[in-house]
Order: sequence, then structure tokens, then C-alpha cells
Amino acid sequence: MGLNYDVAIIGGGVIGGSIAFQLAKRGKKVVVLEKGKIAEQSSGAAAGMLAAQVEMGRETGPMFQLAIQSRAMFPQLAEELRERSGVDISLINKGMLRIATTQEDVQELKEVMACQRQAGHFADWLTGDEVRKTEPALSDAILGAMYIEHDGHVLAPELAIAFHKSAAQLGTEIREFAEVKSLLIEQGRVKGVVTHEETIRCEQVIVATGAWSGQFMEQVNMHLPVYPVKGECFSVITHRPLLQSTVFSHGCYLVPKRGGRLIVGATVKEHTFDRKVTIEGVSALMERAKRLLPGIAHAEFEKAWAGVRPQTEDGLPFLGEHPEHRGLYLATGHFRNGILLSPLTGVLIADLIEGKEILDLNIRPFQVSRNVTV
Amino acid sequence: MGLNYDVAIIGGGVIGGSIAFQLAKRGKKVVVLEKGKIAEQSSGAAAGMLAAQVEMGRETGPMFQLAIQSRAMFPQLAEELRERSGVDISLINKGMLRIATTQEDVQELKEVMACQRQAGHFADWLTGDEVRKTEPALSDAILGAMYIEHDGHVLAPELAIAFHKSAAQLGTEIREFAEVKSLLIEQGRVKGVVTHEETIRCEQVIVATGAWSGQFMEQVNMHLPVYPVKGECFSVITHRPLLQSTVFSHGCYLVPKRGGRLIVGATVKEHTFDRKVTIEGVSALMERAKRLLPGIAHAEFEKAWAGVRPQTEDGLPFLGEHPEHRGLYLATGHFRNGILLSPLTGVLIADLIEGKEILDLNIRPFQVSRNVTV
Amino acid sequence: MGLNYDVAIIGGGVIGGSIAFQLAKRGKKVVVLEKGKIAEQSSGAAAGMLAAQVEMGRETGPMFQLAIQSRAMFPQLAEELRERSGVDISLINKGMLRIATTQEDVQELKEVMACQRQAGHFADWLTGDEVRKTEPALSDAILGAMYIEHDGHVLAPELAIAFHKSAAQLGTEIREFAEVKSLLIEQGRVKGVVTHEETIRCEQVIVATGAWSGQFMEQVNMHLPVYPVKGECFSVITHRPLLQSTVFSHGCYLVPKRGGRLIVGATVKEHTFDRKVTIEGVSALMERAKRLLPGIAHAEFEKAWAGVRPQTEDGLPFLGEHPEHRGLYLATGHFRNGILLSPLTGVLIADLIEGKEILDLNIRPFQVSRNVTV
Amino acid sequence: MGLNYDVAIIGGGVIGGSIAFQLAKRGKKVVVLEKGKIAEQSSGAAAGMLAAQVEMGRETGPMFQLAIQSRAMFPQLAEELRERSGVDISLINKGMLRIATTQEDVQELKEVMACQRQAGHFADWLTGDEVRKTEPALSDAILGAMYIEHDGHVLAPELAIAFHKSAAQLGTEIREFAEVKSLLIEQGRVKGVVTHEETIRCEQVIVATGAWSGQFMEQVNMHLPVYPVKGECFSVITHRPLLQSTVFSHGCYLVPKRGGRLIVGATVKEHTFDRKVTIEGVSALMERAKRLLPGIAHAEFEKAWAGVRPQTEDGLPFLGEHPEHRGLYLATGHFRNGILLSPLTGVLIADLIEGKEILDLNIRPFQVSRNVTV
Repeated sequence: MGLNYDVAIIGGGVIGGSIAFQLAKRGKKVVVLEKGKIAEQSSGAAAGMLAAQVEMGRETGPMFQLAIQSRAMFPQLAEELRERSGVDISLINKGMLRIATTQEDVQELKEVMACQRQAGHFADWLTGDEVRKTEPALSDAILGAMYIEHDGHVLAPELAIAFHKSAAQLGTEIREFAEVKSLLIEQGRVKGVVTHEETIRCEQVIVATGAWSGQFMEQVNMHLPVYPVKGECFSVITHRPLLQSTVFSHGCYLVPKRGGRLIVGATVKEHTFDRKVTIEGVSALMERAKRLLPGIAHAEFEKAWAGVRPQTEDGLPFLGEHPEHRGLYLATGHFRNGILLSPLTGVLIADLIEGKEILDLNIRPFQVSRNVTV
Repeated sequence: MGLNYDVAIIGGGVIGGSIAFQLAKRGKKVVVLEKGKIAEQSSGAAAGMLAAQVEMGRETGPMFQLAIQSRAMFPQLAEELRERSGVDISLINKGMLRIATTQEDVQELKEVMACQRQAGHFADWLTGDEVRKTEPALSDAILGAMYIEHDGHVLAPELAIAFHKSAAQLGTEIREFAEVKSLLIEQGRVKGVVTHEETIRCEQVIVATGAWSGQFMEQVNMHLPVYPVKGECFSVITHRPLLQSTVFSHGCYLVPKRGGRLIVGATVKEHTFDRKVTIEGVSALMERAKRLLPGIAHAEFEKAWAGVRPQTEDGLPFLGEHPEHRGLYLATGHFRNGILLSPLTGVLIADLIEGKEILDLNIRPFQVSRNVTV
Repeated sequence: MGLNYDVAIIGGGVIGGSIAFQLAKRGKKVVVLEKGKIAEQSSGAAAGMLAAQVEMGRETGPMFQLAIQSRAMFPQLAEELRERSGVDISLINKGMLRIATTQEDVQELKEVMACQRQAGHFADWLTGDEVRKTEPALSDAILGAMYIEHDGHVLAPELAIAFHKSAAQLGTEIREFAEVKSLLIEQGRVKGVVTHEETIRCEQVIVATGAWSGQFMEQVNMHLPVYPVKGECFSVITHRPLLQSTVFSHGCYLVPKRGGRLIVGATVKEHTFDRKVTIEGVSALMERAKRLLPGIAHAEFEKAWAGVRPQTEDGLPFLGEHPEHRGLYLATGHFRNGILLSPLTGVLIADLIEGKEILDLNIRPFQVSRNVTV
Repeated sequence: MGLNYDVAIIGGGVIGGSIAFQLAKRGKKVVVLEKGKIAEQSSGAAAGMLAAQVEMGRETGPMFQLAIQSRAMFPQLAEELRERSGVDISLINKGMLRIATTQEDVQELKEVMACQRQAGHFADWLTGDEVRKTEPALSDAILGAMYIEHDGHVLAPELAIAFHKSAAQLGTEIREFAEVKSLLIEQGRVKGVVTHEETIRCEQVIVATGAWSGQFMEQVNMHLPVYPVKGECFSVITHRPLLQSTVFSHGCYLVPKRGGRLIVGATVKEHTFDRKVTIEGVSALMERAKRLLPGIAHAEFEKAWAGVRPQTEDGLPFLGEHPEHRGLYLATGHFRNGILLSPLTGVLIADLIEGKEILDLNIRPFQVSRNVTV
């Protein structure tokens, strides 16, 4: 006996939600299995930057293409999710500034700009004075900035929730507090999953368990090199926004949200699942934020939090079918780009499940088999 | 010495915010003085119904006109506030059902419908089966419902915040923790306000202090018959919405918000400023909600809260200039309709301040002098 | 390479904490491995009743002895924990009333009293009038009550925290966000544990994972019949306590805490790890509480929460060494009595680890091998 | 018509609570009128230091005597409050270190010690090495410290709550959300108070409204020079306490609470009622705390908060009867010492009300008439 679905998705974060949403739109009967509550881990902790160009640097290969294509999906997606779930993901497209505070920064950013322009993308240089003309609250110490018009941001928790609620509205079943303990595998093919409370039979299983993917895959004796990287953030509130654009600098970014909230992130600590906010972390962020944006000193502190992002050894996500167990797909390891990459990840995995050929993107670098020890 | 503004608004709720927004748009230099934090009292506690027709009953006079005209302002306002402040007030226009559970209810609602249709407004009757066809989760015990297509709802705290943040973006100064202790009145004309920290000089002062208006006006020796009416609410969360329309019944309404939240309100207790949630209040609401919507039993309880609404002795708000002190305006006493009436209240008060004639509405019933003992 | 300890305890609840404390007092080098945060599950959700006699009914065998002996440890323990950790567990010994509202209840409770008296324990019968004389706020509908002078209560989260902080003060290492993925077992003997971040070598391992024990033990291919039983609670606040004694009735208990807090618990739902509070659960508790204690209607609602208790198929906890893997101990399955049984559980497991003979208690019914399928 | 009491106390903080408790013990019928909720302002925000000697410096006059005598009351009071209300105020008497980090500090503290010893009180000097031997986690940069054995601390919110709950248990009526708008004064004698909801007649009225006392007294046309001084704090949690003693330094103190909590306070900003935590405030405290106690960098950030303390122009509290209105008493202006001075304040005011002569303390410097403009 058991419950029957077309697809079971393990993980109720932004990646699991996006895949559920795409599959539900294509008529699949889907169940999402989340060990805690929807969007309560990394997706709920993210600042929601869509830093397709700002984060990638000189890299203009497949990862860059993935980011650029996924970023382009947001305007229509925001409308669609809002219509289906009522949730507004608050897409803001007011550009992103990557700040130079030393001559080395200036040199590096100008090289990055050259690479991105050669790849056909917009990137502009602002002098220090131009930066302060655009954003008068920024520090006098800023020497210049690369300005990316198309890099914006969304509310990350809302995006994850909107995906799941939209999928639910299309018939997807969302199960919270449902921890998967093993996979049903018969003759090299996945046949379902077993939770602590029931057995679910299905045609495909998708592992979208983020930073917990390595430990989850050990259950099927697969070493998946995904590890956690902790990040701490804090937020402030002002009546008038301190900034219009998103600001990105060494060890600190500033993301202006609706209603006068400003998120400041994020520390980077590898190989820990610990989600405690430390004094070291939050005080270092505050000092950096004050240097970039002196007026933040007078802003109201709202709260501080931490999350763990899923990093991989080669820095690329795993997107695709398991090399040995047919019907088992992975969609994990997005590190700091899970929010940005979630729309396209949903479409890609849905296409793979439907057997469609992926034409407009080279997904080979993301294959699960590339560096996996079985 | 002192600070100079055109207008000082006392009260940082939805009414004060709407007036600040309208005045700021007209180029006025405005300061909002709030004794606590913006939107932390009634505006933050409201369920956000825009029940222009559902709440008014057979009344089709000036109060009804006020409600209808204010309701019509929301679609454009939602866009404008979102653009200026980034805040989405989540306007939902999926209609409202006023439920009949007895033959007396049926009779009464049909009479209300007749009145409203005669006044030129849409109102439709649904049989019990039609109600359940529209909203399958509603109880079999429902005999029918008046359906008002144009009565919707917004997020009340977001509306109040959006007004204030939009006003701030237009130059309005928002001062929190600023309690006004007296008015400066010289030769029958208001000249400013005195807080516990400073003196502010201005041309006009607007009292938008909601349930606290009676006690505030005592400072200028005016008996204003505004009194508090406590209301308790609770909310639940589900993955799929239990309802599409808002449901209004005896002693209980159900307002479906974005992301699967459903607000259930509200108890009514007169003459108390107490904002504690009681077991009596919340358990009574739960029983009523289960009778209307049996499936709510399995929904996740989110939280319970209370607020105090400003009621007046004749049930009408006070909108206009003080009969003795020129330059002193009142905008208070909106009872359960503060959210609904806030857009038009902002425009009306701004018009009055600018000396414009109010042509399309009879505002005489709302005059401050109508029943005031000076 | 790895870290070396004498004992690793898996689970940071009240049971793991008590064992850590006893072992640390005996000079053991102990590490506690908790997948989330200390005391955040069942121990943090419990009402803290020490209902040794009230809960046990006619049962006066080993389980009753366990309860009675553990209860007797609290007075001295409270002092000791307070001295070591500064945490006050707020032991209250004002007796417990088990209420009869029907003649069948009266009959049953009198039989229970007879059994307990025969076993040498104090139990007294109060008529309805005597009950109301002791506790004037209780309902007129109460026919009588069994009164147990020695059944009291503590603050459950504080107890769990005090155990861990006291153990830490004695040198125990507390690791939060440390999930154990496997045990090191060599030649039938446990040699350590492996978390997602490191390998820890030790002489003994204790599994104190509460409701998650069944799934944890599957990792060592042992079927342990422990399953979760969800319970929902809520609390109210009053300035003057509504009750002095703890009140226990069908489907509802009332536990008066310090500072005017009263905890009302608890629903019972088997086989779910879901920790959501439902409207069904909390509204049923409120109705029952109002019937017992009418004045609670006017009390201030504080909050509602849920936890999952670890139940076993025969209703007895597992206390002892694993039948096959030497050095592996279990201390789990305490159901609703985890708080009550924690002090003695700590001592028992510490004695077993030290090879002491257990003289004053028959622990055979609690042996792990009694009904385990390996 | 009206309600009758012996005494009405305005203000539900630690001072109002202590007076209510003393009067209730003496058989008075008391009502406490609090505009919000009990202990939600300064008393709920305080760190709870009992720094009788550390804060006073060279001052050994009446204020010092007040502090010393009040401090001596805590051990018995803690027992009594716990017995009556069940609330444990967690009195810790492990001494306080006032830190020197410069040679000027050393010089100054040695002079302070000399004064205090001359006044007959214990004060000891520890060299830097002795400091670190006592508190190994403190910084190497510390040159020495004045050590006060008898200065300890309590949980401030618990103290305020325990006073009120103990008074309630003795028959005092606690009214929350009850704002007093005027006093009834007849022929130079206070006869009662008027809230927004009712009139209360009584023999005496006590104003214990802390930072809000200046504005309250304006209602009776008395200029009382009490003004608010904002303070921000934050807290951290560790498994093992970082400190045993309380540590007091320039612009920063560290108070070790039960269960591994450490409170770090406090900023000082005069003349504002604003209770927002700023980045400036909290980041400055974090930097100072890291310099004193480097290990705090790795502690878990718990929360940050702010409160406003009532300061007076001459730095002394107002304790006594109003010079013109008989039966009206003031007990306010305790600045940073409200927690410390609350026990004796309660006794003093109760003695004054009962007409007792105050023999063992010179209270003339605290008289209300000393510098009041009527």
C-alpha cells in the first residue's frame, strides 16, 4: 500500500518550490516533502540579490549563461506568482553597484566590465563622484563602481513561499515535518520514497535539499561534495530609504527592501551547520556597513539572523539525473545564487523529467556524474 | 525658537498617514507626530476589509457615499503607494459574501440588497447551494448570502506604512516616540504643538489620534465623544487558500490574505483601552469560524491579537475644522471603517486645508461642531 | 584522526541533559550532540508536571516505582542545579487534583486511590465542596477529586537547560547543530559517532533522541518501536493566580506556573512529527479549560505551541544497553513522563555505564531487548 | 460615584511595584494604574545591577546611604518575593569589578576606594594579573580593578513583576492599559485620580511614572525636572558562563545572568523618549565588549533593546510629598539606580504615608520641594 504521485520533491526551499511549480504547471501530480517548514532555512535567510553579473566576475561560461537566463525570467515570474498565490515577491530592478575602495579594486572591476561587455552585457563605470551623485548617502571613500543596470533583487522568503503556494494552488501536495529516510530503488530505477510516517510511490524523485544534500545522498551511498557555508545578516529600518540601488563590496552588501528596510549581509564561514549569530559576525558587518554608508549608524536595528548555503567543491550546482539510479534527479549546490538560479532550475529539471532536449544552454558542467564518487 | 512646518499631524495611524500623503503631494511641509511607533495600534491590528456595502446595511446616505467613494480610490492608490514606497498593500477584489444562517437573516439581507440596488449599486443574492458552489469549504448550514462584487480588502498594516513611507519619500518628517502635550493657540488660531521634547510651529494641526482622540481633545478643553471599542482577532495559515471571497457573518468575518493566511475577526467590547487577548474572545471566534468554515479546524493557528477602534456616539466620524480654534482639524472616529475610509479622508482634509469647496459629498454630518460640548 | 571523549550523548533534551550531568559529576569526559538547539523540542514544550501518582493509575509496578523514586529526587536536584547553573527550575509542591466530573470518574478514582494507598502512598479524596474550598475558582460541576500531596511540577525548559548548563560547567562539551549520521561499531562494540562535520571516538554512546529514536536506530539496523505523539498546549497570564494546585482531568490539565502563568495542555495525536498548532486542538483545550475553571475566560491568552512526545508500543521507556552493540545505551520512550523521569534516568544510565548493579529497582521491564527486532 | 481605595499608585514599574508591595503588607487597599503593561518600560529594559558602591564614586552622602541600605534589603526580599509570587529574581552576589584600563583610571579608582573604605565599606584593589586570575576571560589590557564584594545583580523585569504579583496576592488591584488623565484635588488635598475610563477615590496618590514623570506632573501645573535618558543594551548566550563577577568599565558593563546569558549595556543619550536600537549604539557596545572580554566575539547574539531612564537635574531622585497638594507623593527620578533603590523606596514611601518619622536616613536632599517651580 502507499500513496501515488508522479514526482516527489525532497526539500521545501526555493529550488524545490520552483521545480514543483513548473511540474504542476505541466500537469504532474507532485508531492513536496519538507523535514521542517517551507522556506525556513537558507531560502528564508537569503537577502534575495539577483547578482547575475555582479557575482560572476570574469566568468562568462555556462554558469554565467545560467545566471543571465534565470535573471531574465523574473519579471514575468513575479506577475505569475502574484496572480496564482497572491504573494508579491517585490522584484526591484534599480541596478547594482559593485564598489571599488582601492586602486586594485578599480583595476579589477574594469577588467570584469571588459569581459562582460565582450560577452554582450551591459556594464558601466561610475567615478566616485558619479556614485555619490546617484547614491548621496554612500561614503566619500568610494573610488568608483561598476554599475549593472539589470541586477536587482526580490524578497527571498516570499519567493520560496510563492513557488510553493502557487504549486499548491495547481494541485501539488505540500507536506511539512515529513523527513525522508530512504529511497525506494528497484532494478536501478527509483520507485518512491519512505518517510518516517509513510511510503510514497512515484516515477521520479528530486533531491533539492540544499546544504543537507551531501548527508541525504549518503543514504543511497553516493558521496556528493556539497557542504554548508554559514552566512550572517542583519537588517535596519528607516523612514526614507538610505539607498536606491543594491551595493556590493568586499565582505558586505546592502540590499534596500520595500518599506525602508535595508538588509546587510553576509559573513562566510565554511563547513558548519551552526545557525547562531555571533557577535564577531554581526559586529564586523556593522563596521563594514558604516564605512560604506555612514548614515546607517542612525538607522534602527531590526534583527540579525543566519543561514547555511550549499556550496560544492567546484563551485557549480548539481543539476541532472543521478548516474546510476534512473528517475532520481538532483538540483542542489547553488551556493549564494539559489534565489537567482531558482526560476531556470525549475524549468531545466522539469524539461529533463519530461525528456526534452536542453538546447539553449550547455548543462554538461552541472552534470551529477562529473565528480561523484559512487 | 522652534521648528517650522506647514502642517503637523498628530497620530501615525492610517488616517494620519493618508492625510500626510495627500498634503505632501500638494507640496506641503508636513510633520507626523506619533507617540509610539507608526501603525502599531488599530491600523496594525485591522483585518483590512473594504466592506463599503456589506457593513452599511440599509444606510445609503452620506456615510454610505463616503464609503463608496473611498473604496473606488483603492486600485489607483495601490499602484501609487507601491511605486513610491515599494510597499504592496495587496488589494484583493474577489468580492464579499454576507452570510444568512436563519430565515430572519435572509429576509434582512434581501431588504438591504433592495436598498443598495435602489441606490445604484451592485448586490446579488446567492442561495446556499450557490454559496457552496462558489466557496466549497463553507458550511452546509448556510442558507444564502448577499454577494457584493466590489467589496474587497487590503493589508491594513501595510496600507498605514505605505502612506507614511510615501509621505516620507515626498519630504514629510515622521517622528516616532513624540507625544504631543499641548497645542499652541493664539487668538483663536492654532499656531503649533508642543511635544515633551520640543515646540513645533505650523499653520495647521490635524488630530488623527483614533481611539485616543477624546482624551487628546480634553487638553484643549473640548469634549469629543470618541470612545474605544476593543476587537480581538486571530489568523491561520494553510497551503491552499480555504476561501476566495471575504465572508461576513454575525459576530465573525473571514478575510483571506495572500500566502494562505486567513484572518478571523473580531470581537466587540466597548469602553476599554485594554489590548489583551482573552480566552473568552479568541475561543468564541474559533467556535464561530468552525461553524461557518468547518475545514478551519485543521488549519495552523498563527497568532491572536487585539486593537481598539475609535467609535463615536452617533456612529459617524469627525472630519473637519474645530468650531473655535481655526487651523485645528479633526479626522477621527472611523470605528471599524478606518482602513476603508482612509483614502478619501486624506483627500477631504487636504481639500479643507487648502480651502477647496467639497462638491461631490455632503460632509455636514461629519462636522466637528455637530454634537460637541466645548 | 578524531576527537576523544569518554561518552557521547546523542540528543540535547531533558534526558540527554540529565545523563550528561550525572556522568560529568562522576568525572567522565562527555560530549552532547544535538541536531538543533538544546531543549527546543519536547523538553521545551512540556508543561513540567511531576504526576508520579496522578498519571499512573492502578499501576504500582516497576514503572510506578521509577516515577516515585524520580519524583523524590527533585527537591535536592533543584538546589543543586540552581547552584551550579544559576537556573531556577521553579519546583512547586502544592499538590495535584485529579478531577471527577461523573460518577464513573468517582468510582474509578476511588479504586486508584485504594491501589496507591495499599502501595504505601498518600492519596486523599476531596468532595466537590472540599475541592472548591481548596480551589475556589474551580467549577461547580466537579463531583470530587483525588488529591496527591506530593505531585508537583517544574519549568520543563528550564530543567533541560539547567541539566545541560550544569554539565557544561563540569566540563561537558555541548555541540548544537551537530547531527549524528552514523555510529562507529567495531567487533560488536561501539567506538564512536560520526556527525556531518567530524568523527568523535568514545567508549560509550547514549541515544537520547526522544521521538526521533526510532528513525535514529534504523541507522544501526535496529527496529525500535518508538513513535511520536503530538501534543498542543496554550498558556494564559493573570495578575493573581487562578489556582494553587495542579488540576488534572479528562483531556485537559492546568498547571499554575510562577508569575501568574497557567499552562493548559494537552492534545494527543499519534504518529505525527507535525508541530503545528491547529484550531481544532487549541479550541478544544479552551472549551475544556473553561468548563473546569470558568474564570479562565477572562485571562489573557499568552501563546500556543506543540511538541511531540516519544511513545513506545508497550508504554514503557527503553533504558539500558543495546543487546548486540556493547557500549551503546538507549534512554528514550518516556512519553508524557520525560520531565518526571529524567533525574532517575540520568542516575540509572550513569550507574549502568559504570557497571554498577541496580539494586533498588527492577529495571528488567525497561530492557532494550524486550521487544526489539534486530 | 467611583471606586474607593486607600492608595492609588500611578506607574507599573519597579518603583510602583515596590511601593504597592509595602503598602499591601501594611494592610492598605491599593490600586496600581499603568498606562501600558506592567514592567514593559525601563524596569523591563534594565540590566539589574546593584552597583551601590561601584556607581557612586566618591559620593558617600545621603544618596550613597540610600544605595547601601537598599542593597542590604535584597537577600531577604528575594526570598519573600519568591514565596509570595513564585517569581525568582535571581539575586547573584558574586561581586563587581570596576575596571581600570589607563593609569588615570587606576589613580581615580584608588581614590574612590579610599573614600568608601573611610565610610566603612569594603573595597579591594586587584592588579591586572589578579583580575585575570579571578576572571580568566578578561582582556590582557586591563591594568587593575576595584573589587566590590557586595555589589551584585538581579533580573530586573522579574523584580518588577515579582513586586506587582506579590502585591496582587496581598489584595492589590493591578490595572493595565489604565492611563490617568487628571488628579482630583480638593482644598489642597488629593482625593483621587481620573482615568480615561473611570474615577477612583483614594486618600493618597503616588506618582511613580519614571521618565514620564515630568509630563505627568504638568497636569497639576508642577514643573518637575525629570527627563529621559535612553540606554541601549544587548545580550549573548554561551553554554559556559564567560564571567562570574559583574564587570563595569567606561561606557560598558557586563552582567552575567543565569543560564549563560550575559547582558552588555548601556549607551547614554539624553532627552529622548525614542526606544529604537541604533546601529551606532549597538555596534559601539559590541566593540567595547570585545575589548574587555575578547571571547564574547564567539558568543551567540541573542537580542538588543532600549529603554529610557528617568534622570533629574541634580541627579537625585524625588522621594516625598508634594509641597502643595497633601496626600500626593512622588517617587521618581532614580536614573540608573531604580532597580537598586526600589526596595528602600517602597519602605520609605510607605513610612511617609503612614506618618512615620524617618530616623536612619537623611531624606531632605530628596524632598520634592527642593528645586521645583510650581
